[in-house]
Amino acid sequence: MDPVIQQILDRYRRIWALGHAQLLMGWDLETYMPEEGVKARSEASAELSLLRQELILSLKDLVEKADKREGLDDLEKGIVRVLKRSIKFYSAIPPDLLRELDRITSEAPVVWREAKRSSDYPKFRPYLAKIVDLERQVAEKLGYEGHPYNALLDLYEEGFTVREADSIFSTLIPGLKSTFDKVAERGYFPSSHPLEEFQYEVESMAKVNQEVLKLLDMPKGRFRMDVSAHPFTEGISVDDVRITTRYEGKDFRATLFSVIHESGHAIYELQIDRSLEMTPVGGGVSMGIHESQSRFWENVIGRSREFVFLIYPTLKEHLTFLEGYGEEDVYKYFNIVKPSPIRVDADEVTYNFHIALRYEIEKGLIGGSTDVSDLPSMWNDYMDKYLHYRPRNDGEGVLQDIHWSQGSFGYFPTYTLGNVVAALIRSHLPNLRDLVRERRFTEIKEFLREKIHKYGSIYPPKELLRRSFGEVYNPAHLLSYLSDKYLR
Amino acid sequence: MDPVIQQILDRYRRIWALGHAQLLMGWDLETYMPEEGVKARSEASAELSLLRQELILSLKDLVEKADKREGLDDLEKGIVRVLKRSIKFYSAIPPDLLRELDRITSEAPVVWREAKRSSDYPKFRPYLAKIVDLERQVAEKLGYEGHPYNALLDLYEEGFTVREADSIFSTLIPGLKSTFDKVAERGYFPSSHPLEEFQYEVESMAKVNQEVLKLLDMPKGRFRMDVSAHPFTEGISVDDVRITTRYEGKDFRATLFSVIHESGHAIYELQIDRSLEMTPVGGGVSMGIHESQSRFWENVIGRSREFVFLIYPTLKEHLTFLEGYGEEDVYKYFNIVKPSPIRVDADEVTYNFHIALRYEIEKGLIGGSTDVSDLPSMWNDYMDKYLHYRPRNDGEGVLQDIHWSQGSFGYFPTYTLGNVVAALIRSHLPNLRDLVRERRFTEIKEFLREKIHKYGSIYPPKELLRRSFGEVYNPAHLLSYLSDKYLR
Repeated sequence: MDPVIQQILDRYRRIWALGHAQLLMGWDLETYMPEEGVKARSEASAELSLLRQELILSLKDLVEKADKREGLDDLEKGIVRVLKRSIKFYSAIPPDLLRELDRITSEAPVVWREAKRSSDYPKFRPYLAKIVDLERQVAEKLGYEGHPYNALLDLYEEGFTVREADSIFSTLIPGLKSTFDKVAERGYFPSSHPLEEFQYEVESMAKVNQEVLKLLDMPKGRFRMDVSAHPFTEGISVDDVRITTRYEGKDFRATLFSVIHESGHAIYELQIDRSLEMTPVGGGVSMGIHESQSRFWENVIGRSREFVFLIYPTLKEHLTFLEGYGEEDVYKYFNIVKPSPIRVDADEVTYNFHIALRYEIEKGLIGGSTDVSDLPSMWNDYMDKYLHYRPRNDGEGVLQDIHWSQGSFGYFPTYTLGNVVAALIRSHLPNLRDLVRERRFTEIKEFLREKIHKYGSIYPPKELLRRSFGEVYNPAHLLSYLSDKYLR
Repeated sequence: MDPVIQQILDRYRRIWALGHAQLLMGWDLETYMPEEGVKARSEASAELSLLRQELILSLKDLVEKADKREGLDDLEKGIVRVLKRSIKFYSAIPPDLLRELDRITSEAPVVWREAKRSSDYPKFRPYLAKIVDLERQVAEKLGYEGHPYNALLDLYEEGFTVREADSIFSTLIPGLKSTFDKVAERGYFPSSHPLEEFQYEVESMAKVNQEVLKLLDMPKGRFRMDVSAHPFTEGISVDDVRITTRYEGKDFRATLFSVIHESGHAIYELQIDRSLEMTPVGGGVSMGIHESQSRFWENVIGRSREFVFLIYPTLKEHLTFLEGYGEEDVYKYFNIVKPSPIRVDADEVTYNFHIALRYEIEKGLIGGSTDVSDLPSMWNDYMDKYLHYRPRNDGEGVLQDIHWSQGSFGYFPTYTLGNVVAALIRSHLPNLRDLVRERRFTEIKEFLREKIHKYGSIYPPKELLRRSFGEVYNPAHLLSYLSDKYLR
C-alpha cells in the first residue's frame, strides 16, 4: 500500500465508524425507535453529519498529495477519486447554502404531503420554486461542463450527463411506445387481475417472504429483514445488511416484490470484497448500479415465468385464496401491464415513461427553460402523450412523488439507468432461465459478484460497466428484453 | 447561562451525539444485530470511543476557565464537575495502559467463561492477576486519598470511599445475619416453592409483562421493550428509553422481575429534566443511585404483598398453571429466602452478603493485602460464614461473575448502595403500601422525579441524597425494611 494512502486509510477509520453509526441510526429510525425519539435522533444525526464532513475535509491536503503520487493501483486510485468527490462537494457548497437547503427541505415535505392530499399544486409551488433556485445555485457552485443539470446528475450517478440521458430516452421512448401498444393489442398480459383484490393474513405472507429469502439463500448471520413504512436496504457493514418490507394486507405482489427488490440491493452490499471494508470504496458505487441490482432481482428474475413456477407451491401453501389460481394466473398477475398514472404502481413496460417525463421536467427546471408554474400542464401533456392517460388531478399527477420536496434533483434518472443496466446484465446471462428454473441462485450471485459487487466503488460506474460488459448504458438490451418477454 | 458554559455546551453537542450513537450501537448489538456484524460493530465502537475521548479532552482549557468563573449556578457547576471528572480520567491514564486494559479485558471474558464451565480457577488466575495489576496502576495514576481502592470506587460512585463502605457493611452484616437466622427459624418464607418448577409459554408470559408495563404506565411513544440474553436498560434520549428482558421458559419470576427492575432504571432516565438533554449532566448520576431506582421498583414495590395482589388477576389469566395457587402462594414464591451460592439468584435478605464478600476481596486485591491465589478459599470461607454454605466448586464460587474479567473493580459495592438507598427512599414514603394498593404509581413516580430523577447528574450522589432526604448511605433503613417485611 502506498504510504500516503495508508495514512489516509488510518485517518479514514473514524469517518467510516461515524458512517456506520449513522446507517444504524437511520435503520432504527424507520424500524424500532419509539416515535417521540425523533427529535433527539434528528439532532444527533445532524451533529454527526457535520462532524463527518469536517473529518472528510481535514483529509484535503493528504488526498491532494496522494493524487500526485505515481504508480497507484486501481484500489488506491479509487480511494483518491471517491474522497476527492466528497471533498469537492463540501468545499464547493457554502455552509449558508447547505443550511438553507436543509431548512427548506425539512419543511417542504410537510407542505407537499398536505398539497398532495388536497391536490393543491399552488400550495406547494413556492417551495418548489425556492428549492429549484437553490439546486441551481448548487449546480453553479459545483461547476459543470455543458448543461447545469450535469452537476446534479453527477451527485447521484458519477459521470452521467444530459447528453447520455437524452440519447437513452430518445431510443427508449419510441421503442417502449411500440411495445406498449402491441402488448395492449395482443391482450395476453392483462390490465387488471382478480388476485389484486384478495386480502392476505400478514403472518402467512411473512412466512412466504421468509421462504423467498431462504430460496435466494440470504445469509442468516449477516442479514435480517424487518418491517417499516417504506421498504429500504441498509448495508451497515459487509456482515450486517438489513432490508425491510411492509404489509398492506392486500395485493400480495407489493410486499413480495419489495422483499426481492431489497434483497437485490442487499446481495450487492453483502458481496463487496471484504478487504474494502472501512475504506472510502467499501460501498455500492452509485444509485444507478445499485438500482440495477434490485431491479434485476425484482423484475428480470422475480417476475419471470420460471420464478413464478418455483415459488408457486410456497404461495399456494400459505395463501389459501390461491385455490383455483394456477401458475399461469400468478404469472399474469405479477405482470399486469396498465397505464397507471402513478410511478410506483407502474409495470416494467410503462415504468420508464414516468422517469422520462420527470427527467425532461428536471432538465428544464435546472436549465431555466421551464418554470414551476408550467409543471402541471407539462406533466399532464407528457402522460397523455406516453400513456394516453390524463391525470384527473395534480395529486395523481405532478404532486405524486416526495423527491422534489426533499431536494432530490438528478435522482429519478437513476431508476431508468437501473432498468437499462439490469437488462445489460441479463444479456450476458443467456442461460438465466435455466439457472432460475434449477434454483442455481448461487451461480447468479457469483456472476454478479465477479462482474460488479466485489469492486465496491473502486471504479466509477461507467468504467465498471465497460470493464465487465464492454459497453455502458445501451438501452437496446432493455427494449429487446421487454419485447422478448411481452411480445413473444 | 454563563458565556463560557454556553461555549462548552455548544461544543458538547457533538460529544452528546456520539454518545447517542454509541448507546444505540450497544442496544442493537444485544437485540437485533445479525451475529456476524459483531466484528465491524466492535471496531466502529472503539473508533467512536477514541473520537469521543479526544473531543472531551479538547474541552480541557474551556472547562478550566469555567471552573474559575464566579457566580455559577448549580446546573453550571454540575456541568463543570462532570466534565472535569471525564477529563481527569482521560488525562491521568496513559494510552498504553488503557490499551493494555482493553486488550486483556477483551480476552479475559472468553477464558473466564471456559474456566467457569470447567470450574478451573487456575486457568483464569493469570488473567485476573494481570487485570488486578493494571487496575492498581489505574488507581495510582488517578490518585486517591486513603485507600487506593477509593480511586476505583469513585469511578462507579462519585465520592464513595472505603471508609463509608466499611461503615455500611459493618452495620449491615450483623443485622442481616440476625434477620436471616430468624427468617429461617420462623419458616413463613419458604426456601423453595413448587411454582419455581412450572414451564411457561413465552407468548403468555410476554403478555403478562406487557400488562405490567401498562400498570406502571410506561409511556408508549418514548419507551420500548425487547428481548436479549441479559436484561438491560438504555437511555438513548429522554424520549427514547429501552429495556430488555429474557424468557427462560421456567420460573416466571425471573422475567417478570427483570421487567420491573429495568423499568425502574427506565423511569429514572425518562424523568430527567428535558432541559438537561444534550448536556454533560443529562444522564443518571451514578451506578448506586441508578440501582436504587431499579431495586426500589423490583423489590420494595414488585415483591410487596400489595403488588402481588394487584397483578394476580393478570398472572392468573395468562398462566394456566396458577390454577390452585392463590395470591398468598405467589407472594411466598416471589419472596423465597434461601442461602443460594449464586449472587444473581439471591433474595433480598441474603443478597448483600454476596456483595460484602466481593467488596472485601476487591479491597484486599487492590490494597495489596490479598493475592489472587488466596481467592477460592477466601471466597468459600466468607460464604460459609455468612450463609452457612460452602460452594461445591469454583464455578459456583469465585468464578460465578463476569465482572472481574471485564476489569470492573469497584462496581459490585454499588449494588448494595442501591439496596441501601432504595430503603432510604421507602422510609420517606410512609403510605407506599396504600399507593401501590390503589395503583397510584403516577404519584410514586412524581415523588421520585422531584427527589432524584429530574436533577440528572447536576449534584454528586451524596449531595443529591442529602438535599432530598437529609441523609446519605444509612443502612438502618434497609435493616428495618427487611425486618418489617420478613419478621412481622
